[in-house]
Amino acid sequence: MSEELAEILVRAEAAIERRDEVLVRELCRDLHHADLAELYEDTDSEGRAFLTDLLGAERFTEILAELPDTLVEDTLDSFEPDEQREILDSLPDDDRVDVLQDVSESKRRDFIDLLDEEKQADTRTLLRYDEESAGGRMTTHIGKILASMTVKEAIDHLRGDLEATGTLARIFVVDQTDKLIGKIRLRDLAFNAWDVAISDVVQDVEHSILATADQEEAAQMISRYDMLILPVVDESNRLLGVITADDAFEILEEESTEDIEKGAGIAGEQSEETYLNTSVASHFKRRCGWLVILAFLAILSGFVMMRFEHTLMEVYLLSLFLPMVVAAGGNTGGQASTMVIRAMALGELDPEDTRRVAWKELRLGFFLGCLLAAIIGLFAVFAPPALQFTLPEGVNFTQFGLTVALALGAQVTTSTLIGALLPIGARAIKMDPAVIAAPAITTIVDVSGMVIYFTVARSILGV
Amino acid sequence: MSEELAEILVRAEAAIERRDEVLVRELCRDLHHADLAELYEDTDSEGRAFLTDLLGAERFTEILAELPDTLVEDTLDSFEPDEQREILDSLPDDDRVDVLQDVSESKRRDFIDLLDEEKQADTRTLLRYDEESAGGRMTTHIGKILASMTVKEAIDHLRGDLEATGTLARIFVVDQTDKLIGKIRLRDLAFNAWDVAISDVVQDVEHSILATADQEEAAQMISRYDMLILPVVDESNRLLGVITADDAFEILEEESTEDIEKGAGIAGEQSEETYLNTSVASHFKRRCGWLVILAFLAILSGFVMMRFEHTLMEVYLLSLFLPMVVAAGGNTGGQASTMVIRAMALGELDPEDTRRVAWKELRLGFFLGCLLAAIIGLFAVFAPPALQFTLPEGVNFTQFGLTVALALGAQVTTSTLIGALLPIGARAIKMDPAVIAAPAITTIVDVSGMVIYFTVARSILGV
Repeated sequence: MSEELAEILVRAEAAIERRDEVLVRELCRDLHHADLAELYEDTDSEGRAFLTDLLGAERFTEILAELPDTLVEDTLDSFEPDEQREILDSLPDDDRVDVLQDVSESKRRDFIDLLDEEKQADTRTLLRYDEESAGGRMTTHIGKILASMTVKEAIDHLRGDLEATGTLARIFVVDQTDKLIGKIRLRDLAFNAWDVAISDVVQDVEHSILATADQEEAAQMISRYDMLILPVVDESNRLLGVITADDAFEILEEESTEDIEKGAGIAGEQSEETYLNTSVASHFKRRCGWLVILAFLAILSGFVMMRFEHTLMEVYLLSLFLPMVVAAGGNTGGQASTMVIRAMALGELDPEDTRRVAWKELRLGFFLGCLLAAIIGLFAVFAPPALQFTLPEGVNFTQFGLTVALALGAQVTTSTLIGALLPIGARAIKMDPAVIAAPAITTIVDVSGMVIYFTVARSILGV
Repeated sequence: MSEELAEILVRAEAAIERRDEVLVRELCRDLHHADLAELYEDTDSEGRAFLTDLLGAERFTEILAELPDTLVEDTLDSFEPDEQREILDSLPDDDRVDVLQDVSESKRRDFIDLLDEEKQADTRTLLRYDEESAGGRMTTHIGKILASMTVKEAIDHLRGDLEATGTLARIFVVDQTDKLIGKIRLRDLAFNAWDVAISDVVQDVEHSILATADQEEAAQMISRYDMLILPVVDESNRLLGVITADDAFEILEEESTEDIEKGAGIAGEQSEETYLNTSVASHFKRRCGWLVILAFLAILSGFVMMRFEHTLMEVYLLSLFLPMVVAAGGNTGGQASTMVIRAMALGELDPEDTRRVAWKELRLGFFLGCLLAAIIGLFAVFAPPALQFTLPEGVNFTQFGLTVALALGAQVTTSTLIGALLPIGARAIKMDPAVIAAPAITTIVDVSGMVIYFTVARSILGV
């Protein structure tokens, strides 16, 4: 966000709090609806009522489509039925469906009844698709012409419905039964003679998507193939609608946020609300699940410590490097899993790549382990005596340093491998790899780190 | 990626290994250049030479723009100079500049000399902008008309340069000195009478960006305001070029990956190469820095353990829950920092929101702490005696459970707060908040967890 815009928003917020109609009206005049939606979301409920009154139904049509799910119903309710009709009528069909999916079922019926018959039918058709599917995201108002037309006929045909058509960046060519035959660009109409046949300028449609496919697949296609518009079809290749680049931005942002949050052990759907507007209760619900599971998992590390009581009691100096050896595994395992999960999300890793991943991470873990073992091992030989820590009779600092170095190297190598392979294993059993969150891996390799450290100590120090 | 496409790629890889020219040619015929680039990247160097020979310079023009930085120079070198000229000449100017930024300086001069004079001048101009700036990403071949034209004149003007113009989704209206006056849509040309004046249909340009601005800002504008094309201007508002939605997808994907990787303590620029094609050496370089720093930080926890030797020796059962109390802080702190860093990346948090964030996370930390304290506290009262663990004389299991519960609650509350506030603090001192990686927070709260646990134990158990 530019500083200029941020400043306007701050001034507008203050003006809303003072209920300064003149200033708010002036500041909002040139704001984009995405910015107005943010302003509306960031104010309290009285401020919101003030804004709906001030800006009116016409302005709120576009704002509504940008609001988070939880605000939609209350916002619509603050308008009179004829204003509600105006808003719902003016919304593009994909946004109207999004809005209606966010309100309670009884409200939804009432709102649909406000529309004219044609829009009622269109809306009911779109509502049948899952909200997360390509069909649930598409808009049906698109430029559509027949292959048998000429350029002149196509222009006349499109002109009739120009206002309702959101995008003409691609115009789709269909046959009499609506089957998708090809596409043309608007420039093919604008720069060709009027008697040219559409069938002479039509191009193949290289990519289309089924209405029932996941919206994420549609967004990734648009991004991968540098498309502006992706046609959505049914099983018989009949053109149903299109998904546009601006939908793809929204979908990909949601999916990225979800992956990042899952990686930190935060459960559930990413909320459309901003962080600050999400209630403490819903933050709590999304975070508590993994925490409880991880807490019980972490007690396993405690059992290992209990098991090696004798070793730790004999050489208590082992405790100086115990947390470090354990944590180093969590850190390298977390790095490896992050890299692998992201590579999978970007479609870079196929199941048959597992051995290559394992071999790469094994070498990486080994080299990282050697580096850390060398640095920390030397530190363990020279620092503790310099700090006047003591070792029991029969154990010297060289042995002690060797113990720390060997355990650290082994822990880093195994943890790196575990971190890389767990997400791949998760996918193999059809689990979402992002759910094998970094904290889960940390907890698992904590246990192995304890075992490795004490076992190495026992055999080298003879305790 | 669809299963069908994945299968074609696997078959093509096998055919390349067998050097089966007929089959490779057939499989590649209908592949999009993004898919061909993936195929090319995934094969070995002999396979790549085979593909460049087979597909030829014309096909490689588009593939080249999709390749990772490190493959560009070698790929270009495998063509003869006249083929190199053909490739560089056919590339859109923004892709040509990207490609030239990826080769060594001497090569760059040679390659530029292959171009005709006009393209040489254009290319040198664009190369002056930083690779990560809006100017470094823009294309200069855009639809540009004068306000004084009629629709007919505009069509004739644009027709002359139609082949070189990548996008006509928006056509920009400038004055004689190239200052940006407004925009029109191609449909305004296609559906209006030829004698209509452009000045009658021109619309305001709501958003433009300076050529020197960060490319991420440009991408976020395109995504936020649902734009297809963002005009790039200089300080005097002269139109220099445009950034398109497909550039924005690439920029946002790179930035997301970078944020995710930083969050796991992986340093440096995200590589354009896939995970598998990145060498072990460069993976090593990006991961080793934080690991060494974190290892030394983690030794601090060891010092705390040394300091509380007496307490642990007296009630060794404390070790059963020590790793869990410590880890719970890392987990909640990691969740909080992830949420806050993502909210900042999405532009949801301003510096003045710090108190609201702190208040929200303090309550969340407290409630999560209470939940965990209750569950694990009860477990600590009843499980250890059932498992026949013993406590020293004068200490009972109720006191022990209380110790675990209180320490856990305090650790979770403080860690949640620390996790949320550290990234905000980092930004306040102009550090990238994503660098306050989850592992760094984990390591910091590990220390506080040790201190809290042993201090509570001392005061409740009197050891």
